[in-house]
Amino acid sequence: MAKELDGYNFEQRHGKSRVRVARVWQSKDGRHSMVEWNINISLLSDCLASYVRDDNSDIVATDTMKNTVYAKAKECSKELSVEEFAILLGKHFTSYYPQVTSAMVKIVEKPWERVHIDGQPHNHGFKLGSEKHTTEAIVQKSGVLQLTSGIEGLALLKTTKSGFEGFIRDKYTALPETRERMLATEVTALWRYPYESILSIPQKPLFNERYLDVKKVLMDTFFGPPKEGVYSPSVQSTLFHMEKAVLSRFPDISGIQLQMPNIHFLPINLSSKENGTIVKFEDDVYLPTDEPHGSIQAKLTRFWSKM
Amino acid sequence: MAKELDGYNFEQRHGKSRVRVARVWQSKDGRHSMVEWNINISLLSDCLASYVRDDNSDIVATDTMKNTVYAKAKECSKELSVEEFAILLGKHFTSYYPQVTSAMVKIVEKPWERVHIDGQPHNHGFKLGSEKHTTEAIVQKSGVLQLTSGIEGLALLKTTKSGFEGFIRDKYTALPETRERMLATEVTALWRYPYESILSIPQKPLFNERYLDVKKVLMDTFFGPPKEGVYSPSVQSTLFHMEKAVLSRFPDISGIQLQMPNIHFLPINLSSKENGTIVKFEDDVYLPTDEPHGSIQAKLTRFWSKM
Amino acid sequence: MAKELDGYNFEQRHGKSRVRVARVWQSKDGRHSMVEWNINISLLSDCLASYVRDDNSDIVATDTMKNTVYAKAKECSKELSVEEFAILLGKHFTSYYPQVTSAMVKIVEKPWERVHIDGQPHNHGFKLGSEKHTTEAIVQKSGVLQLTSGIEGLALLKTTKSGFEGFIRDKYTALPETRERMLATEVTALWRYPYESILSIPQKPLFNERYLDVKKVLMDTFFGPPKEGVYSPSVQSTLFHMEKAVLSRFPDISGIQLQMPNIHFLPINLSSKENGTIVKFEDDVYLPTDEPHGSIQAKLTRFWSKM
Amino acid sequence: MAKELDGYNFEQRHGKSRVRVARVWQSKDGRHSMVEWNINISLLSDCLASYVRDDNSDIVATDTMKNTVYAKAKECSKELSVEEFAILLGKHFTSYYPQVTSAMVKIVEKPWERVHIDGQPHNHGFKLGSEKHTTEAIVQKSGVLQLTSGIEGLALLKTTKSGFEGFIRDKYTALPETRERMLATEVTALWRYPYESILSIPQKPLFNERYLDVKKVLMDTFFGPPKEGVYSPSVQSTLFHMEKAVLSRFPDISGIQLQMPNIHFLPINLSSKENGTIVKFEDDVYLPTDEPHGSIQAKLTRFWSKM
Repeated sequence: MAKELDGYNFEQRHGKSRVRVARVWQSKDGRHSMVEWNINISLLSDCLASYVRDDNSDIVATDTMKNTVYAKAKECSKELSVEEFAILLGKHFTSYYPQVTSAMVKIVEKPWERVHIDGQPHNHGFKLGSEKHTTEAIVQKSGVLQLTSGIEGLALLKTTKSGFEGFIRDKYTALPETRERMLATEVTALWRYPYESILSIPQKPLFNERYLDVKKVLMDTFFGPPKEGVYSPSVQSTLFHMEKAVLSRFPDISGIQLQMPNIHFLPINLSSKENGTIVKFEDDVYLPTDEPHGSIQAKLTRFWSKM
Repeated sequence: MAKELDGYNFEQRHGKSRVRVARVWQSKDGRHSMVEWNINISLLSDCLASYVRDDNSDIVATDTMKNTVYAKAKECSKELSVEEFAILLGKHFTSYYPQVTSAMVKIVEKPWERVHIDGQPHNHGFKLGSEKHTTEAIVQKSGVLQLTSGIEGLALLKTTKSGFEGFIRDKYTALPETRERMLATEVTALWRYPYESILSIPQKPLFNERYLDVKKVLMDTFFGPPKEGVYSPSVQSTLFHMEKAVLSRFPDISGIQLQMPNIHFLPINLSSKENGTIVKFEDDVYLPTDEPHGSIQAKLTRFWSKM
Repeated sequence: MAKELDGYNFEQRHGKSRVRVARVWQSKDGRHSMVEWNINISLLSDCLASYVRDDNSDIVATDTMKNTVYAKAKECSKELSVEEFAILLGKHFTSYYPQVTSAMVKIVEKPWERVHIDGQPHNHGFKLGSEKHTTEAIVQKSGVLQLTSGIEGLALLKTTKSGFEGFIRDKYTALPETRERMLATEVTALWRYPYESILSIPQKPLFNERYLDVKKVLMDTFFGPPKEGVYSPSVQSTLFHMEKAVLSRFPDISGIQLQMPNIHFLPINLSSKENGTIVKFEDDVYLPTDEPHGSIQAKLTRFWSKM
Repeated sequence: MAKELDGYNFEQRHGKSRVRVARVWQSKDGRHSMVEWNINISLLSDCLASYVRDDNSDIVATDTMKNTVYAKAKECSKELSVEEFAILLGKHFTSYYPQVTSAMVKIVEKPWERVHIDGQPHNHGFKLGSEKHTTEAIVQKSGVLQLTSGIEGLALLKTTKSGFEGFIRDKYTALPETRERMLATEVTALWRYPYESILSIPQKPLFNERYLDVKKVLMDTFFGPPKEGVYSPSVQSTLFHMEKAVLSRFPDISGIQLQMPNIHFLPINLSSKENGTIVKFEDDVYLPTDEPHGSIQAKLTRFWSKM
C-alpha cells in the first residue's frame, strides 16, 4: 500500500476505535437476546490529498463510520455473531466507497450470559462472565477475505502436574529444575477460518458454536482427565498440544496461534539470620505475580494456509 | 485515636497493602483445593516516636506484616474462608504486639473456580470467574470485632422491565420519562455479621455458603421470576428491595449496604440535516457507556446494629 | 442522616459520577485558557418515597445533575479553580432543591499545562503533565462548608539519604536494618481550608496558588537542600515533617493528611548453587515493585480544626 | 522462521515480559543519576524439541533472561540510553547462545526527572513526569540490526486553529463541517535509525538527545508559532507535516510512524421540550471523551529505508 509522496514512501490508514454498541432482539414469546460489542474499524483508502493538499474530498469521516455501525446494527433483524457483523461491515465499507480498497474490522464481545433463576433461563436477565470472544475480518474490495476469531482473557491454572527440567544451565541460570510446580496462564487464542472470499462463507455459519468448541478443546487439553490430569513438561509442550488438538478436531480451522504467558506462582521460602527458617515451602504457599512473566507464543497452520 | 503532638492533633496508621498469597491444600485422595488472596493490613498502634523522634523501636515493619501473612497461611492446614483468615490475622497482630491496639484486615479473593471436564469436577484444574468475594475484619485488642463481607464486580443487566418516571422536572431537566429502558449496574455489596467479639464467631462458620446465598438473593430480587421478571420503577426501589430481601432472609446478617451505579445504555437516535433520520430507536440499538454514571447507594440495618 | 424505615435504619445518597467537562475562555488578545474536570456529585436528600413507595417525585434525576454541571460551567465567564466550582455547584443543589440537605462535590482536574514554543507561552496550546489537583466541597443547606483540596499522583523518589533501623525484630522479621536505601512514594495529599461557611470564603480566593505552594513545601521537605538532601529515618518521620512544614507555613490551612505508600525498590542479589554470586548489590541495581507496598498515612490538624 | 512440523507449519518465540530494573550511578561529586526500565525480551531460537518431544535442552529459561537483565545492568558502569541497553542485550543473547538466531528487545523508560529545589538541580531527587521514551532493537546473529525509538503518551491539545471540512457526505453522515474545533490527541511516535548493523552504531550515540529533539519538532509543528499557531485542516494533514518535519530535520532518521487518535471534545448543546435551550455551544463548553475516538496513523520513510 506504500505510495510515493514528495520523494518519500508513505503508508496510511484511518478509522474509528472503541465504537460501542448493544443490540437487543425480542422474540414473540417474550424472550430477549442481547449482545454488547466494542468495534474497531480501520480503512485503507486512496485519500492522500487530505494529508498533502488539505483536500478532504476522499475522506470517510470517522464519525460516519461510527454512525454506520449503529445503522447496520439496526438493520440486523436477527441475532448474529461478531464474525458475521464484522464481515457485513467490511463488505459495506469496501463496496459503498470507491476509494476504500480494504477494511479491517475487529470486534470484542462483552461476555454477557443469560442468568438462570431457580434453574430456569431468564427471559431478559444477563450477568457478566469472564473471557471474551473476539474477531477480525479483513475484507478487500475484490471480496478477498481473511477471517480470524479468538478468545481473550481465558485464565487457567493447575496446582500440579507441571514441571520444567533439562533446560540450558549457564552462568546466568538460577532457576532449579522441578517436576512439581503450579502452572498458570491467561490464554489468548486466534484461529483462522479457511474462507478466502466473502462468497465462500457458509450459508449458516456456526461461529458461536465453534468459539465454544475451540475453548472446550483448549481446556480439555490443558487440564487432561478429571482424575489424573496430564503432565506438562513445559508451557511450550502444552501450548503445542493444545494447538494440535484444535487443528486435528476442526477441519474448518486452517491455523491457530496461542499466546500463553507463564504467570508465575513463586514458592515461598523465608528465613532470617536470627530466626532461621520462617516459612519452608512444601507445595503449599505461593506468591502469585503479574510481573515479570514468561511469554510463550506459537502458531500452527496447515500447509496450504496463509495465517 | 487522635493524640496531641507538638500542639497539634495527630492520627496515624501504617500497614502493608497488596500482599498476595496463594494457598493449596491437597487431600489424600488427590483432590486439590486452592485460594488466591490479595490482602491489605492496617494497624493502629502506639508508635508516635517514629514520627517525631526518629525512634522506630515501636514500629512493626511492614515487611514483617507481609511475612506474617505467609507464615499464617502456611499454618492453615485446612481450607478456610477470607473471613476466617482476616480474623486470624487481626487476632495475631493485636495480641502479639503490645503497642498494636487495633488491626484492620481486608481481603479480596480471586474467583478461581474448579473446572469440570466431561461433567466431572477436575482434581487440580481451575479457571478464573467474574465477581469477587471480599471481607474486612476490624479487631481490637480487647477482642471486639467488626466483620463485614462483600461482593465486588457483580455486573447485572436486564433488557426490559425498568422505567423512571415522575421525577423532578426543572430548567436543567432534559431526560424524558419512560416505562421501558435497559437497566445495567455493577453491584458492590457489603454486609455486616452480628458477631461483636472474636469469641462470638461460630465454631463452624459458614461464610462461603453465606456469600453464595446473599449473591443468589440479590440476583433473584434484581431479576424477578424467569418468565415475567419484575418491574423496576427506579434503581433506588430495586436496591431497597434487594437489601430488604437479604435482611428478611438471613437473621445472621445485621446490616447491608449496596452501591449500584446506573450504567447507562443510551437509546441511539441519529439524524442529519441532509438525510433526516439515520437511526430511529425502537428498543433495539443502544450506546453502552461507562461515564458518566448515576451513583445510588444505601444502607439498611437492624435497629440494634452499628454498621 | 439515618431514618427509620419499615423497622430498619436506612441511609442513602444518590448522585452522578464521572461527569466530564472542559471549559475554554478566550481573552480579547487571543490568549485561551482551558480546564478539564472530572466531577462527582452526591446528594443527601429527603426522597425515601422513591425507595419504598415507587414515588420519584422528590428525586433529582442524575441526568439533571449532569446537565447542571454543563449549564453552570457555561455561566462561568471567568477562569476559576476547582474549589470555586465545587462550592458553586454545592450552593446550587442545596439552595435550588428544598429536599436536598447536603451536597458533596468532588473534582479532579486534568493537568493540562500551557506549552512553550521557543521559550514563549503558547496562546492556545496545552500538554498533559503528571500529578493532579483535586478538591471536595461539602455544602449544607445552612451554608455550612467543609472544603478540602488535594494532590493525587505526586510520585517522588530519592536514591539515597534514607534508612530504616531499630524497628521491632521478632520471629517474623527478615528485613535487615539499613542506613542506605532508595525511597520512593506516590504522595496523596488532602488539606482542609478553615472556611466553615460559604460566606467565609475570601472574595478573591487563591486556591490555585495555594495548590502550587503546598506542592512546593511538600517536595522541599521530602528532598531537602539540592546538594546534601536530608536524611529520612523512616517514611513516618518524613511524612510528619512534610505535614508540619505545611501547617507552619500556611495559616489558612487547618489540617493536612498524607498517604505515602512505601514503593519498594528491592536490592538485587542473585546467586545459584552452581555459579555462586550472579549479581551482588552495591547500591546500584534495584527491582522496582508495585506490590506489595507499605502504606503509611497520618493526619495533622490544628487543635480547633475538625478535619 | 516457519518450520515444518508433523505436517504443519510452525512458528514460535519465547521470552520474558515486564522485567523491571532500576539502575543508579553515583559520581564522585555526590551527584546521582538513575533510570527505571520495563523490558520485554523475545527470542527466536531453534528449540522445537521442547514443543514436540518434551526435550528442553535447547531452551533458554525465561528466568535466565531476567537474571541476564540484572547482570548486564550491573555491568553498565556508565549511564546509558534505552537504545544502547537494548542493543547490548540483543548482542548478548544472539552471540552467547548458538541456537538463538534473533533477539527482540523492547524497553519503556519511566519518565523520572531530576527535581530542582530553589532553582538548583537536586543531587539525588527525582519526580515522575508524563510521556515515555521507548525503544525496540531487533538483533540478528549476523549482527544485522533494526533499531526503532519512540514516544508514548504525549498528550497534546489546542483549543482553536483546527477544522474539518469537505469530507464525503452520504446517508450515514451527520457530522457538520467546521473551521473551529478543539484538537486533542495522544501521540505515539516510532522512528527508525539507519544503522543496519550493530557495527554501524556511532561510537558516542546521542539517542537521548535525539529523543528530545524529535519531541520538540513534533510539538513545534503541531502547535505552530506561540501567537498565531497554525491551522489544522485535518488530523491527517497535521500528522503528515509532523512526520515530514522530523525527516527534513534529522538525516539520521530513516523513517517515522505516528499514531494520532482524534480524541474528541464534543460541543455541548442541550435542550429539552419544556425548556428549550439549556446550554448553547459557543466554543466554550465541551464534553471530553475517551471513546469512541478517530484513529489516524501513517508512516513516512526515505526511499532506501525498510521500516
